[in-house]
Amino acid sequence: MPGRSPEALKLAAGNGLLHRRLFMKRGAAALGAGSLGLLTALPSRAAPSWMRAPGRPMTGYGARSSHEDAVQRLTASVPGTDGCGISLTPLQSLEGTITPSSLHFERHHSGVPEIDPDAHRLLVHGLVKRPLFFDMASLSRYPMVSRILFLECSGNSSQAGLEPEPVTDTCGALHGLVSCSEWTGVPLSVVLDEAGVDPAAHWILAEGADAAAMTRSIPLAKAMDDALLALYQNGERLRPENGYPVRLFLPGYEGNMSVKWLRRIKLTARPSMTREETARYTDLLPDGRSLMFTFPMQVKSVITSPSPGLALAGPGLYQISGMAWSGLGRIARVEVSADGGATWAEAALSEPVLSKSMTRFRAAWRWNGAPAVIMSRAIDDSGAVQPTRAAIIAEKGMNFLYHYNGIQAWRVGGDGQVTNVYA
Amino acid sequence: MPGRSPEALKLAAGNGLLHRRLFMKRGAAALGAGSLGLLTALPSRAAPSWMRAPGRPMTGYGARSSHEDAVQRLTASVPGTDGCGISLTPLQSLEGTITPSSLHFERHHSGVPEIDPDAHRLLVHGLVKRPLFFDMASLSRYPMVSRILFLECSGNSSQAGLEPEPVTDTCGALHGLVSCSEWTGVPLSVVLDEAGVDPAAHWILAEGADAAAMTRSIPLAKAMDDALLALYQNGERLRPENGYPVRLFLPGYEGNMSVKWLRRIKLTARPSMTREETARYTDLLPDGRSLMFTFPMQVKSVITSPSPGLALAGPGLYQISGMAWSGLGRIARVEVSADGGATWAEAALSEPVLSKSMTRFRAAWRWNGAPAVIMSRAIDDSGAVQPTRAAIIAEKGMNFLYHYNGIQAWRVGGDGQVTNVYA
Repeated sequence: MPGRSPEALKLAAGNGLLHRRLFMKRGAAALGAGSLGLLTALPSRAAPSWMRAPGRPMTGYGARSSHEDAVQRLTASVPGTDGCGISLTPLQSLEGTITPSSLHFERHHSGVPEIDPDAHRLLVHGLVKRPLFFDMASLSRYPMVSRILFLECSGNSSQAGLEPEPVTDTCGALHGLVSCSEWTGVPLSVVLDEAGVDPAAHWILAEGADAAAMTRSIPLAKAMDDALLALYQNGERLRPENGYPVRLFLPGYEGNMSVKWLRRIKLTARPSMTREETARYTDLLPDGRSLMFTFPMQVKSVITSPSPGLALAGPGLYQISGMAWSGLGRIARVEVSADGGATWAEAALSEPVLSKSMTRFRAAWRWNGAPAVIMSRAIDDSGAVQPTRAAIIAEKGMNFLYHYNGIQAWRVGGDGQVTNVYA
Repeated sequence: MPGRSPEALKLAAGNGLLHRRLFMKRGAAALGAGSLGLLTALPSRAAPSWMRAPGRPMTGYGARSSHEDAVQRLTASVPGTDGCGISLTPLQSLEGTITPSSLHFERHHSGVPEIDPDAHRLLVHGLVKRPLFFDMASLSRYPMVSRILFLECSGNSSQAGLEPEPVTDTCGALHGLVSCSEWTGVPLSVVLDEAGVDPAAHWILAEGADAAAMTRSIPLAKAMDDALLALYQNGERLRPENGYPVRLFLPGYEGNMSVKWLRRIKLTARPSMTREETARYTDLLPDGRSLMFTFPMQVKSVITSPSPGLALAGPGLYQISGMAWSGLGRIARVEVSADGGATWAEAALSEPVLSKSMTRFRAAWRWNGAPAVIMSRAIDDSGAVQPTRAAIIAEKGMNFLYHYNGIQAWRVGGDGQVTNVYA
């Protein structure tokens, strides 16, 4: 057994941040965590009640423990509706990179349609040589690919950074319009090649089979690059709230474009200028003009633990854990600060680090019990660096709603409570 | 738009197996799949019923479509009990590599205990300098790691290969005691280092908090290598049937050793010779002796589609899709045959290919409508090759129950029906 190396415990940045080598194989042996598992009382010799009688039988489709019932998506609807709104992933309660499908965020414009998959069809038409018309059985015969990919609503996080005074709520309530799943489906390029794309086509229109008939325009180049006709999510068929039986999936692009319940793809010469790309999903600038067609989600990260609602129990060792992602590629590095941004330590990234996926980052922190401000910033392999809130506001003002990716600072009080601060 | 390259459509092996380059970026453009999406009838101009009224509201914790209700684990119990038995993952209904937690296989010895996580404790004792006693909150403060890992019961697949005559059932019924999840937890080595391992210790005993108090002996070297105290499964806390609130997880080892509902780890000089490693989980040889302590699961693969119950609709293009895994490391290659093993083509592997994880493999196949025998064989990066059924029986006879990893052959009849054959 190797001993504890003082080297491994070297501080990597101010106010107690330890070096990420602790997360490498056997590195954490150096922690000497000490006080966390002390035998303060003799274990009871009596077996707990659940060891004194047989447990529950096997089941066909399992459920979580009732002790986890409080882990829920927060939901919010436009007044007067119950199906036009959002639900948010409780990021503060999750670990790893996969979001359970039952907790994937939602954004619906007219609720979740209950579609009979045997009656659902996908039409490919417009500027093509051969219009195509698929039922789900024929679509499922094509070669598929699987990728672990994040999906983020472009409206995510704006409440966390664009209010005049910082709003404290859970990490999920502030940043939970982002989730990550393994998606499996047929590359859209396969189907478009079969249809035969007319050289005059430069865009596609994608339409959903919900009551809103949600439509978006997508550049043909993206459709031919890495777009998927997704049929499976985390191993099983898509969930209804994620587009069952088939959705478009555009890796790295704002979530609204990955049209759910996909029923129609029309190839067009120009964008179709639908409601969702004119009256909505545009970024209002200080001079009154709006940016349109701002597709990729920019590099971003957030510390999910500690975060508001997860109070620290007292001074000592804690894991800082969070998520980073970029619509432009792989996360190259995440840095963590425990002194309000004065000094930064490189966080450990959980392998594999995949393009356009969530990446879990972690750091070990010895909290000394004094108030502290912790934050993370992500850098992707395009070289893009997550900006500060101040830099974003200087550039775009405070009247835009979409694509906010500023650094999130959490203040840890002397009592261990965590709040949202602008730092 | 690139045209169709005859090169890309070159056969890679006999009886219609196409080259795996079809699964590389844009490679499938060469398929010219043709007949799968023909516009045989004009699409109806009437909107389907689910577009004519708002859909369902957002929910706190989502559920799958009722149209998927038939996708269930098969369950089987020892007569007279309902909690000593198994449930099997329906592999034939899944795609990608992640198994939904609700469909992860089960093997319980006295049912699923309903544990209060606030009352659960983990004791580390025996040959250590400092016994440790953890509640779940203190355990959760340690640095964690996340890995996508398969788990397989060592009794998996024996019915598929070791009956005198081949039994036809679904792929899940024959091979479904294997699943794959993202597991997150604290490296066991961190906790053992903190406890201070006595040099006389060479094994650990792990005990579960079920009514069977399931116990297994594990070499200390494995415990210090890559063993996890797993707290999260696919992003959320462990499911009850997978050991909530904490389980041992031994990557690549037979599932029974990854003790669920973990309550005690005792460091010992020698193995404890428990029931589960003497009367069970040993491999009976033809000479009447038994192999003990056969820990790693060997290299294996199975075609999940086509498979029994998934009949082919007629001649034409199909995706062959399956899973490969090895307890010894990464999958290096999977080969597929459509002519009963006479010729083999290399399958495409879905990235990332991870050590001790499931790996999805796929091949494109033009079925000519004649009876055919399809099969897969996996090779891992230790050089181990999945053996034939005949080779296994020649070596170990037919009286063992565990660690069967023979090549699975499926016969596709002229009517498209799929059956289990010994080929």
